[in-house]
Amino acid sequence: MLPVVVIHGGAGHVPRDRSDMSISGVCSAARAAYGILRGGGNSMDAVVEAVIQMENNPTFNAGCGSVLNVKGEVEMDALVMDGKTLASGAVSAVRNIANPIQLARLVMDKTTHACLTAEGASQFARAMGVPEVPLQSLITEYARMRWQKNLAHDANPVESQMGKMGTVGAVAVDREGNIACATSTGGLLNKMEGRVGDTPCIGSGSYADNNIGAVSTTGHGEAIMKVTLARLILFHMEQGQSVEAASDLGLAFMKSRVNGLGGVVTVDPQGHWAARFSSLQMAWAAAQKDTLHYGLYTGEHFTQSIDVPNPH
Amino acid sequence: MLPVVVIHGGAGHVPRDRSDMSISGVCSAARAAYGILRGGGNSMDAVVEAVIQMENNPTFNAGCGSVLNVKGEVEMDALVMDGKTLASGAVSAVRNIANPIQLARLVMDKTTHACLTAEGASQFARAMGVPEVPLQSLITEYARMRWQKNLAHDANPVESQMGKMGTVGAVAVDREGNIACATSTGGLLNKMEGRVGDTPCIGSGSYADNNIGAVSTTGHGEAIMKVTLARLILFHMEQGQSVEAASDLGLAFMKSRVNGLGGVVTVDPQGHWAARFSSLQMAWAAAQKDTLHYGLYTGEHFTQSIDVPNPH
Repeated sequence: MLPVVVIHGGAGHVPRDRSDMSISGVCSAARAAYGILRGGGNSMDAVVEAVIQMENNPTFNAGCGSVLNVKGEVEMDALVMDGKTLASGAVSAVRNIANPIQLARLVMDKTTHACLTAEGASQFARAMGVPEVPLQSLITEYARMRWQKNLAHDANPVESQMGKMGTVGAVAVDREGNIACATSTGGLLNKMEGRVGDTPCIGSGSYADNNIGAVSTTGHGEAIMKVTLARLILFHMEQGQSVEAASDLGLAFMKSRVNGLGGVVTVDPQGHWAARFSSLQMAWAAAQKDTLHYGLYTGEHFTQSIDVPNPH
Repeated sequence: MLPVVVIHGGAGHVPRDRSDMSISGVCSAARAAYGILRGGGNSMDAVVEAVIQMENNPTFNAGCGSVLNVKGEVEMDALVMDGKTLASGAVSAVRNIANPIQLARLVMDKTTHACLTAEGASQFARAMGVPEVPLQSLITEYARMRWQKNLAHDANPVESQMGKMGTVGAVAVDREGNIACATSTGGLLNKMEGRVGDTPCIGSGSYADNNIGAVSTTGHGEAIMKVTLARLILFHMEQGQSVEAASDLGLAFMKSRVNGLGGVVTVDPQGHWAARFSSLQMAWAAAQKDTLHYGLYTGEHFTQSIDVPNPH
């Protein structure tokens, strides 16, 4: 059953003209991460590589392609967690870097802290030699169009967000049984400056523990935080629920208690995995036993040998 | 059993010359919060008032009296949570305001977000008419002395932190059965600029749910985050554990799994309460049935009628 990697490209409603790019993006990221795992690499390297690929892909709301805040700027959040030690690293409201997930990993590896925010995160990036990139290099035409549309006084950015794929994330178990997760986002469309969502918040945006499993979440951040969705699902697994049942229980609770929609990718130490969502769609992909699995709508589950080229 | 409020003034090791001030501070805060509850006020107003009193008291590491970051500046984190709706508000790395807990409450009440950080939080404070205060008004001589001492290359700020009371927090249940929590901190001694700890991280620094109870935590922030301590304790309560047993299970897990020390105050919907810690000391106070309870060392539990003046 090991190794395994499961990836999401955000929960929501993907416009038809963008759905192929979303599927293609998560499948490419899953292949890249699985290549690392199959070559004997560890789960942390695999999830970080998967997320870097999606940050670099303008289709997703992370890195280049992030949604804009109300001022038309990009502020990004990211978190990695190591299930062996429970160590984590996060950045919140960070600007002018291409790959927030790499900076989050540096916070974990090179500091005694678990999260750096805003200008402090930028200073740390400079100290680590992470290149600064111009704001414009992170902004796509599509992101700018959506920002302008939602500046109207009667706009509903939370509703509108559902037309743009959200947060990206990955969970993996390597051959040694070590579990890791990584999640990265541009956050909420037209958010206030300095808004921090669920992604860098341990237990909400993701959580990994070698003894239980890992979850990476996507959806309405403020709702995810209210129920600490990632940790909630893992508690259900500690109570004996399967990855699938635990994920569904967590998402159902979020819907009934706080009227929130979202999606998750989940693994357990044995390599069982799930990609579940209460939103209309979630682009997801998984790789295990040399087979690529992927889907977008509820109930969709395509499979393909991992050795053939990317189907999209 | 209702109403009840339980307060902590941080886990650690309090120097003898400061222990009286710590006890006095938590007792005053408990009296003030209990006065609100006894007058029919709600739990959110009570916990926020308790925390404001401790932020204004230079004895505690929150508001005035906060520890300094490595640059000699004050950056503060705070979180409130409403157990009825699971709504929360937080600020992280915020500067130049006297009462971060009030700003956290404004984030909850006046925005659609759950957390604002750094400069974005400052902008929001200005928009809300929260007065800016000079950095110097938040810095005590004691905080400056400890900062300088820990600038030495061989200093161990995490160890040294244990000589300074930490984070402050409160949990309460009002007559209606509504539960709230509030936590505020200056963070970790000589932290990097932009370091965000457990306090503004929902499920780590605190959590409140009318159906389960509430927890506010203190101790080594990075360890608390690794185990999402507040939510962990509430999961034990959902499994049928008492407030005391659940608190001890959470603290014991944090010690065994990640070698972390800390303390918590916990309530359940029936008004059972606990103040537990694995550190050497934690200044705590509780008020219930017109009786004030308080202590500092393990096993200490003094009681007094709430109607007599503050004993210290």
